[in-house]
Amino acid sequence: MQKADTTLIEPKELLKDYKAKVDVVLENYLNAKIKEFKNISEFAGKFTEDLAEFTLRGGKRFRPALIYYGYKLFGGKNDDEIIKLSIYIELIQSFLLIHDDIMDRALLRRNGTTVHKIYEQYSSDKHFYDDIHFGTTMGILSGDLANQLALEIISESDFPLEYKNELIKLVAKEVSKVCFGQIHDILLNYDFPSDYGEDDIIKVHYYKTATYTYRLPLFSGAILAGATVEDLAILDEYAMPSGIAFQIRDDVLGVFGEIGETGKDIKGDLIEGKKTLLVTEAYKNADVEQKEKLKELIGKKDLSDTEADLVREIFRNTGSLNYSVKKCQEQIDKAKLSLANFKRQKDSEALRFLMGIADYMIIRSV
Amino acid sequence: MQKADTTLIEPKELLKDYKAKVDVVLENYLNAKIKEFKNISEFAGKFTEDLAEFTLRGGKRFRPALIYYGYKLFGGKNDDEIIKLSIYIELIQSFLLIHDDIMDRALLRRNGTTVHKIYEQYSSDKHFYDDIHFGTTMGILSGDLANQLALEIISESDFPLEYKNELIKLVAKEVSKVCFGQIHDILLNYDFPSDYGEDDIIKVHYYKTATYTYRLPLFSGAILAGATVEDLAILDEYAMPSGIAFQIRDDVLGVFGEIGETGKDIKGDLIEGKKTLLVTEAYKNADVEQKEKLKELIGKKDLSDTEADLVREIFRNTGSLNYSVKKCQEQIDKAKLSLANFKRQKDSEALRFLMGIADYMIIRSV
Repeated sequence: MQKADTTLIEPKELLKDYKAKVDVVLENYLNAKIKEFKNISEFAGKFTEDLAEFTLRGGKRFRPALIYYGYKLFGGKNDDEIIKLSIYIELIQSFLLIHDDIMDRALLRRNGTTVHKIYEQYSSDKHFYDDIHFGTTMGILSGDLANQLALEIISESDFPLEYKNELIKLVAKEVSKVCFGQIHDILLNYDFPSDYGEDDIIKVHYYKTATYTYRLPLFSGAILAGATVEDLAILDEYAMPSGIAFQIRDDVLGVFGEIGETGKDIKGDLIEGKKTLLVTEAYKNADVEQKEKLKELIGKKDLSDTEADLVREIFRNTGSLNYSVKKCQEQIDKAKLSLANFKRQKDSEALRFLMGIADYMIIRSV
Repeated sequence: MQKADTTLIEPKELLKDYKAKVDVVLENYLNAKIKEFKNISEFAGKFTEDLAEFTLRGGKRFRPALIYYGYKLFGGKNDDEIIKLSIYIELIQSFLLIHDDIMDRALLRRNGTTVHKIYEQYSSDKHFYDDIHFGTTMGILSGDLANQLALEIISESDFPLEYKNELIKLVAKEVSKVCFGQIHDILLNYDFPSDYGEDDIIKVHYYKTATYTYRLPLFSGAILAGATVEDLAILDEYAMPSGIAFQIRDDVLGVFGEIGETGKDIKGDLIEGKKTLLVTEAYKNADVEQKEKLKELIGKKDLSDTEADLVREIFRNTGSLNYSVKKCQEQIDKAKLSLANFKRQKDSEALRFLMGIADYMIIRSV
């Protein structure tokens, strides 16, 4: 029997196929954990269920797919095991998002209630006291637990010990960088120096997003397939610009996107006062009146819909929106160009996936 | 030249010697990290300095010493490497304490300001806004970073890959248990069911304390020396009762101790409303009037010194203090008895250390 010809399958379809496969594994894993932790107590079971629901609720399984294709790119053969392993990044993702949402006071994530808000409500329903603090507390613990589960998945996977040790080292180093990215992102909301510019924004994108959205998953797969340090350096030329493009796009969608598209509150970034390329570029080009408006509205806790539209208008009129679109495109071009370095790689599906995914980062119309 | 005879050195002295050795390693490690992260930004450097100061500030290095003696007990020979590795548990400890202190709203730890409070002050000094939230945010991130550093230390250590993988698995599993211990501890402060009793308290001690204070360090050393699953099961008969004794003692000192002894606020546990064996036993034996007083005062946010003394008096008069002392002693006896199983082990210093440390858990006079 001939193998099915997959050369005509679109990258978007490949991602959908991978999601279908990995969702089964993820769900089985999380169900087993719920069962395990229910033995501790009823609440421990509920707590794990909430973490599972949050994790399953989310996304396109984009990062696990990057693990898979990073593995295939370097000739990895054990498909079943890499699919099983690839769910670890979803637990890391849950850990980081749950903690971030506490820090950002986010209400909505993945079209559902954020974890700390779930427990705030729980506390209120149970007539505890100090509901916000209870929510924060349980959110911290939920993230901490998710982090441990990710490690357990790696350590229990069936790959050569040497590669697994490299992977743990990588996770520790990259997640440390994410922490520093988040620190600087937060700091900008509190203390926004007047000389703050594009370079600083890109630095946060680099640390906070590119590391764990692209580098960590791609390197994870590559390492488990036996990629060398030199291989990783080449792969990084794809990973980092892709990650920066991803964040620029995310920030644009965070202001101009639809709620169904982002899964987050469409005024959230503006209310939070998030410092993005949109904001720095708008400030650079704004006239006195526009500058005053930006100062007044970005970070305003009770921002109305009309006011949000006014900010969007300023982003358009100052050329700031176009600038983000252009900068995003530049990074995508850079990432795609770097793929030429992998011509010698035999796995054309992996290359096609990486090429196609880069194109999805293009900001088409907003 | 003859080896110095160490058979006469007291366990307390052994711990002091180990602390001296490990403190140098820990300080060098943290200084290297400060230097590394300063490259990211000035604030990243300060952030790492604060984590380093918090970590160095603390303790007797009791858990690293348990790693060392767990290693020696099973014939481990690479002293330099196990000392280097043993600092990982101090980073896990920092991670857990920093997050716990946010949840408990603790002001003081290890005779100094808690990490989230340091950043609350920083925010206030810089005239940011929302100082408490800034403190919480930086505290979450500081703990998250400490967790990553612990993993990095393990993955970079020079032990057989197989043992290191076992160690990562152990850390993930035990820290998960600590999370659940903390969840239940917190839950008791919000929702204290009337039928809650000694067994439930001991369960929290088991999950929250015994796991990472005794089992995790002892097992870490043992695994790195090549101990078998059967070895670990025997070692657990020492570890778990020791850990429970440790927590009972800690809770007694948390109410009856001196501030210099605990490094924490001496009214902290009472103000927090911490549910301990002292509390459950006092409730069990209290008359109507005493019960009313306990209800009124335990968890009272502005508890006066006189009121704290009144609670202490009730703990004494209801026999609750004596009961904790007795229960602690029972666990210590159990732990010491289990050491007989290690007669075949050759490292008498390790056995002497474990025996001696058990005795330090005795509550002498309060």
